[in-house]
Amino acid sequence: MTDELTMERVLGAAARLVGVARRTPVLTSATLDLRCGAPIVLKAELFQRTGSFKFRGAYNRLSVLDPAQRAAGVVAFSSGNHGAAVALAARLLRISAVVVVPANGSRAKLAAIEGYGAELRRYDPATESREEVAAAIAADRGLTLIRPFDDYDVMAGQGTIGVELADQAPDVELVLVPVGGGGLAAGVSTAITGLMPGAAVIGVEPAAASDTAQSMRAGHRVTIPEPDTIADGLRATEPGEKTFAVNSRLLKDVVTVTEDAVVDAMRFCFERLKIVVEPSGAVPLAAVLSGAVGAAGRTAVVLLGGNIAPADFAAYVAR
Amino acid sequence: MTDELTMERVLGAAARLVGVARRTPVLTSATLDLRCGAPIVLKAELFQRTGSFKFRGAYNRLSVLDPAQRAAGVVAFSSGNHGAAVALAARLLRISAVVVVPANGSRAKLAAIEGYGAELRRYDPATESREEVAAAIAADRGLTLIRPFDDYDVMAGQGTIGVELADQAPDVELVLVPVGGGGLAAGVSTAITGLMPGAAVIGVEPAAASDTAQSMRAGHRVTIPEPDTIADGLRATEPGEKTFAVNSRLLKDVVTVTEDAVVDAMRFCFERLKIVVEPSGAVPLAAVLSGAVGAAGRTAVVLLGGNIAPADFAAYVAR
Repeated sequence: MTDELTMERVLGAAARLVGVARRTPVLTSATLDLRCGAPIVLKAELFQRTGSFKFRGAYNRLSVLDPAQRAAGVVAFSSGNHGAAVALAARLLRISAVVVVPANGSRAKLAAIEGYGAELRRYDPATESREEVAAAIAADRGLTLIRPFDDYDVMAGQGTIGVELADQAPDVELVLVPVGGGGLAAGVSTAITGLMPGAAVIGVEPAAASDTAQSMRAGHRVTIPEPDTIADGLRATEPGEKTFAVNSRLLKDVVTVTEDAVVDAMRFCFERLKIVVEPSGAVPLAAVLSGAVGAAGRTAVVLLGGNIAPADFAAYVAR
Repeated sequence: MTDELTMERVLGAAARLVGVARRTPVLTSATLDLRCGAPIVLKAELFQRTGSFKFRGAYNRLSVLDPAQRAAGVVAFSSGNHGAAVALAARLLRISAVVVVPANGSRAKLAAIEGYGAELRRYDPATESREEVAAAIAADRGLTLIRPFDDYDVMAGQGTIGVELADQAPDVELVLVPVGGGGLAAGVSTAITGLMPGAAVIGVEPAAASDTAQSMRAGHRVTIPEPDTIADGLRATEPGEKTFAVNSRLLKDVVTVTEDAVVDAMRFCFERLKIVVEPSGAVPLAAVLSGAVGAAGRTAVVLLGGNIAPADFAAYVAR
């Protein structure tokens, strides 16, 4: 297989994930359609294993390790969804995993990663770089580093969301995806372009983390300061090299939403849909609820996950 | 049709609800199975229209009104799920509806009932009886009173949950249902007895509202003082006459759970399943999570709804 993101690579990932990842449901709501002026289909990745879409990419990536790499094990850096995803995927494949986490990370999130059987390596965010810590562990112990997004097999795994959408909602005209590092956007836009060429894919970012939107306008990767947004899964400071090459070609546009619009979308999910969506997961829904994207025809919206600390969720929905 | 609760009556309700009520999904969780030591299937009525199972019974009841009754309209008393259910069912069937609500009721709940198009009639709980207010309106204006549970067509509508379960989880050995007035329990136990005679149905009540559990032991309907429980949908002071006749025959047992166990179950749903369950809805799950019921084989648990004020939900999950 050539080293690029192709439809075949996404379909290969889909085959590997059968019976392992959940085929997440699509949800609809008459109230939502009324609010948006168009039929909306929500792809509920909050019901994915580990509570977010990240499991798809992590499992696919670990599945293509060669026997020597499997025997040696893997390392990842993440305080959140990617860490949990790598930990569970490794456990299912009987591969040992180290996850590099901030020493001041959320106790619940670190407990989840440890609960899936990974070894935690804490670092001090004030004095250490997680990339360097992970690279040093990888070199020392001969582990394979599992990148969170800038990896074709990770991207292909995330793209299986698009494969399922093509079957669950074949008549959509528009697909809204969140953009952080860009792995989900690249995977899904590849799948949608291949399977539903008539549908447009638009990326959505928090206004405070608009690195990909800015990069699209500039025509090259732009680096922004550390973003201040509640959407903690989308705090990238620049698009990935590989993801941007795909996204700049396949995304019709990248739009941004305010923090208030994200909280409104989370509260809508709580009150009307009875589902728990984390801030990053509510970003694309915020675009269509706030009017940042005008939904004309049938529109699919990816809700990327539901992992959020109880106190944070309480503060957002009850404010 | 004779005036009793039969399997035929439940199947008639199921036919009327096709394309109107949602066929709610069943959810599973590996973590839940591990915690309970048995495979658990959750029937997610929080995804039902209006956010609770009550829509099934209300729509079925309103569907069997004769033309003169339809033209005159209906009245119901409820501050919560039954009120919203009657309001939406009436709107869909183009019937006018009055809902008698406490003047001090939750603004959000009253707004929901009004939003579905019902006329609100506020009463003062300190000085008026809602039953008397509703009866007076019914007599004055020639309206049909839609009882919340002690009505065979309401019970038959709730029983369609059991019809769907028989199809979605035909291999369950045990079904756990919440018991308030007993309408859901009577409908579901009738359906399960008819379609899955090998499965047992057990009712679950908050310990603070154990009117049906006490009545089962006594062999007749027992009245208890106004219960103090967070499960506001299950605050009945005595079983219904018609519902108890069915439940005392068809329920294998009625068990109780503590308030803490209910909150734990709500938090489990939030953290692991990413769904919003109201306190009443979490009562049967609390039974299996707390060990009040030992699940030996495959067990279905009915989650009755997800309607709860944001501040209340925040207080429970973040406490």
